[in-house]
Amino acid sequence: MLQNISFVLSHTTHPGNIGAAARALKVMGLSKMRLVNPKDFPSQEATRRSSNAHEVLEAAQVYSNIKEAIADQALIIGTSARNRSFPWPLIEPRELAQKLAKEHSAKPVAFLFGTESSGLTNEELQLCHYHVWIPTNPDYSSLNLASAIQLIAYELRLAALESGLELDSSSHVIEPGDEFAESELVEQMLEHWFQVMEHTKFYDPQSPKLAELRFRRILNKAQLTRSEVQLLRGFLASVKKFDRSRNSLINSPQVSAKLEP
Amino acid sequence: MLQNISFVLSHTTHPGNIGAAARALKVMGLSKMRLVNPKDFPSQEATRRSSNAHEVLEAAQVYSNIKEAIADQALIIGTSARNRSFPWPLIEPRELAQKLAKEHSAKPVAFLFGTESSGLTNEELQLCHYHVWIPTNPDYSSLNLASAIQLIAYELRLAALESGLELDSSSHVIEPGDEFAESELVEQMLEHWFQVMEHTKFYDPQSPKLAELRFRRILNKAQLTRSEVQLLRGFLASVKKFDRSRNSLINSPQVSAKLEP
Repeated sequence: MLQNISFVLSHTTHPGNIGAAARALKVMGLSKMRLVNPKDFPSQEATRRSSNAHEVLEAAQVYSNIKEAIADQALIIGTSARNRSFPWPLIEPRELAQKLAKEHSAKPVAFLFGTESSGLTNEELQLCHYHVWIPTNPDYSSLNLASAIQLIAYELRLAALESGLELDSSSHVIEPGDEFAESELVEQMLEHWFQVMEHTKFYDPQSPKLAELRFRRILNKAQLTRSEVQLLRGFLASVKKFDRSRNSLINSPQVSAKLEP
Repeated sequence: MLQNISFVLSHTTHPGNIGAAARALKVMGLSKMRLVNPKDFPSQEATRRSSNAHEVLEAAQVYSNIKEAIADQALIIGTSARNRSFPWPLIEPRELAQKLAKEHSAKPVAFLFGTESSGLTNEELQLCHYHVWIPTNPDYSSLNLASAIQLIAYELRLAALESGLELDSSSHVIEPGDEFAESELVEQMLEHWFQVMEHTKFYDPQSPKLAELRFRRILNKAQLTRSEVQLLRGFLASVKKFDRSRNSLINSPQVSAKLEP
């Protein structure tokens, strides 16, 4: 799908934006760029801002008018502010990307972007099947050209990934070889913890049972792995050992003194 | 929700990126920017690239270290590549934004962005509750700093707009009168914990620093409230007091013996 999508930049004024656009495309796995009457291209500034996406710039095709630039494309999408005077099929980037992935993944699709100051002309807008509208701040909708391209490229990439294999979007941490701790392990550790609390004479003067409950909640929230349970038990054991050495001090201080270098 | 989110840029090299970031934020209705040791700020280039988002730049607060910059923040999110050697809770922007809208909309949330060339340092990454990972092209993942900010700001805006209609279905537990713990409180508690570990001579024979890192991760996962931090500190204090009473036993066993009924 991503290989069938072209980004057409019409009458771009700042070469830096062309370079930034190339980078924005490549970082999302897109590569096809077409330029209609760019003011300054090729240019060093474009190359500099493209970071290492030179080959997208080098492969960019330059046209002298928009109709030529989209002649071989099957579905044309224009980026646009809302137009209240003459409404056009208007769609947001996410819905559009999902639609493309579902219905149009084998078609050559072109996204049109107008000049920085004023966007697409009416003539250009009317060449489009859809107008895509990025939901910006109504008080300040001045999205940079390369940023708009970045957002659309991102939605296209996500839609392409979703329609193929689902991405692993797990927010959980498991190191290789580790596993989530079974409830039983966590219970044993909590038991251990409560014993240690007794030893160290820690208690909540308000309500000791409540303190236990709150420790339990903290550790549940952490969704511990087995090795984390082990780590915590190691720490608890170190506290308890501490205790034993104290008891032995009471019984025979001279012996215990030797235990400590 | 958007008013509670700050973007923290650490050691930014190019002032143009700071300006572009300000614009990227404002266009999505965000406004809070913090800068940690920017190389060149304030600067004309930043102002130029901010387009008309000057007031975001003007309101940006400058800090000399990352811990100060996030001291009053409750949930810290770092931008990161995948780290296979020491995994941390990893989440994609969309899922994260929806999670923030659902569960954390009232918390002060900070997004951390590292220097352009190498991203966040390990120390910075370890301050985070989540690492957010933008699903880029695996062959070219060089996302521009302001573009990354643009994508995340966009997801935050969409999630905020969507959640406007949805009911708050918080899965998080906050007791009345309690609040999520600010980063500073959690850091102090971890410091306390590590001291106690030294006292009880708990250490991982493999690597003591790794044990600290793993404790940090467990407690970050738990997303502690203030009163939970207090509870844990109470427990740690009880362990330490234990220590003191043992030392006093060594010096004068007969006195200490009286302390125990």
